[in-house]
Amino acid sequence: MTSAQYDVLGIGNALFDILVRTDDSFLAAHGMTKGAMALIDEAQAAAIYKDMGPATEVSGGSAANTIVGVAALGARAAYVGKIKNDQIGGLYAHDIRAANVTFTTATAQSGPATGCSYILVSPDGERTMNTYLGAAQDLSANDIDPEQIAASSIVYLEGYLWDPKDAKDAFVKASSIAHQNKRTVALTLSDAFCVGRYRDEFIGLMRNKTVDLIFANEGELQSLYNTSDFDAALAQLRNDVGLAVVTRSEKGCVVASKDSVVAVPAFPVDEVVDTTGAGDLFAAGFLFGLVRNVGHEQAGRLGALAAAEVIQHIGARPQVSLKALAQKHGLPV
Amino acid sequence: MTSAQYDVLGIGNALFDILVRTDDSFLAAHGMTKGAMALIDEAQAAAIYKDMGPATEVSGGSAANTIVGVAALGARAAYVGKIKNDQIGGLYAHDIRAANVTFTTATAQSGPATGCSYILVSPDGERTMNTYLGAAQDLSANDIDPEQIAASSIVYLEGYLWDPKDAKDAFVKASSIAHQNKRTVALTLSDAFCVGRYRDEFIGLMRNKTVDLIFANEGELQSLYNTSDFDAALAQLRNDVGLAVVTRSEKGCVVASKDSVVAVPAFPVDEVVDTTGAGDLFAAGFLFGLVRNVGHEQAGRLGALAAAEVIQHIGARPQVSLKALAQKHGLPV
Repeated sequence: MTSAQYDVLGIGNALFDILVRTDDSFLAAHGMTKGAMALIDEAQAAAIYKDMGPATEVSGGSAANTIVGVAALGARAAYVGKIKNDQIGGLYAHDIRAANVTFTTATAQSGPATGCSYILVSPDGERTMNTYLGAAQDLSANDIDPEQIAASSIVYLEGYLWDPKDAKDAFVKASSIAHQNKRTVALTLSDAFCVGRYRDEFIGLMRNKTVDLIFANEGELQSLYNTSDFDAALAQLRNDVGLAVVTRSEKGCVVASKDSVVAVPAFPVDEVVDTTGAGDLFAAGFLFGLVRNVGHEQAGRLGALAAAEVIQHIGARPQVSLKALAQKHGLPV
Repeated sequence: MTSAQYDVLGIGNALFDILVRTDDSFLAAHGMTKGAMALIDEAQAAAIYKDMGPATEVSGGSAANTIVGVAALGARAAYVGKIKNDQIGGLYAHDIRAANVTFTTATAQSGPATGCSYILVSPDGERTMNTYLGAAQDLSANDIDPEQIAASSIVYLEGYLWDPKDAKDAFVKASSIAHQNKRTVALTLSDAFCVGRYRDEFIGLMRNKTVDLIFANEGELQSLYNTSDFDAALAQLRNDVGLAVVTRSEKGCVVASKDSVVAVPAFPVDEVVDTTGAGDLFAAGFLFGLVRNVGHEQAGRLGALAAAEVIQHIGARPQVSLKALAQKHGLPV
């Protein structure tokens, strides 16, 4: 194993977030499932947007948010995702590069527009996402640069990549190259409904060692094993994968390996404004901790801290220096 | 005078705001004057944006922000401003219409892109704006619909309109139609440097009765009369225009007419996050008060409340119901 150029490389659907505060009645009127991510086509996107209130825009995309968080903590980070050469793609590329993330994926010159997620933020802070994949639909194995993957200590993949038609090929290719180079491959299960769509494949990825580390929240874990029994599901997860981190909202998280289970509390927050990116930023903190070899408990605390920052404002990208924030709270950066 | 279809109609430069938190060293390194609005061309915009950190986008434009605030308080509002039929123009048009503002200005089908303001927000909350006018450059007298102007109780204009080449013609045409229909014409002086560019013309607009009501902050007032003596400048202003409102940041505002001067305190805020839109939203509250005939002091309080809301978050558009906020504080809406 040669020394790595990047601490963490993320692969995901590159999405520009269009966020609006709304009442739950809006979700009901539009048949949306609160807290979930639904895939929509261009016509549905236009219809939803037409009904939405005045918005705020912030670059997003699950794995991209995580990678920006990793960089904000001070690690070397890279991202692979597909945008188009349109105005929104320009904003997107600016934001991720301005966050000190290497982003060299070829920009689509034709085809669908840069993808957008239309996000409704409820009064309690919960977010409901409606995603038009757009250009992200066309991410393929050709977008995976073997040298870049080989040079990354951890490759981080989002379960949402199972939705576009060719991205799973990119996913498997990246994992294969990473493992040839003795790197770690991490996967977030992304969304309980996403798990419902690809349950058997996700379990297969763990059992055939395509992934080494799983991030999930309680809902995703329960969906994965079709059970509402948290402990039973966690036991199965520990049997299927070497390392797993399960987030439990205000109850904190559990870091589970073959030989230990460590519970880490959530970080206190004044007010939950918008939960968009909570899981993504938790993963950022935890991955950063892994990279710095601080142990599972401290890694969990870094995750909890980064998640707490991002849920106290609109949008899924950190608004303050996560590095300075971690230092302020005595966490290792 | 026939009954009005709109309580307030605003005319201004339609601009999409790209906001970034930064340190004052960024301003110094780029030769920016903290707190000011500088006009930039496309190449300068690209250079500044390249150096800026990850951003948040919110629709903006001074008069547009005011009009959105007027609508958020519950009045009938319309806006005239020029965007292009590009992606950012699409976001802009959505946001203003979703705010219950009538917006029917013809969209440019060719020429420069929808205008953007690159806004640096300092740690103390002060904002420094770099504006690429883009499509706003092409607002002209043809964009003024005489029937719409005639049907608006108050026509509100921004001093920034003096920057694009033909917008002042639109400005004068709108004022003329408004006065023919016994409507009120209000002008905000916009920016101390803008006043510096057009001092004599702005004074002329007051003295020849093109405008009836002036909004200014202390810096603009002092620039207008080339004096640092606030009382002397205010005396001159009272002599030049029938009604004037001068905002003084945390010192509140002064409402000055021929026969009275009323001071109104600022509204207390927990933390100043971003002053972008403070003056715009103050004007919104005051204009709403005028429309509702609540008297100058209550109008000033409504202005102070709306300004306080907008400076406690990123972006110049209200994030909560201003109507509910005013009700909560016992103000007339």
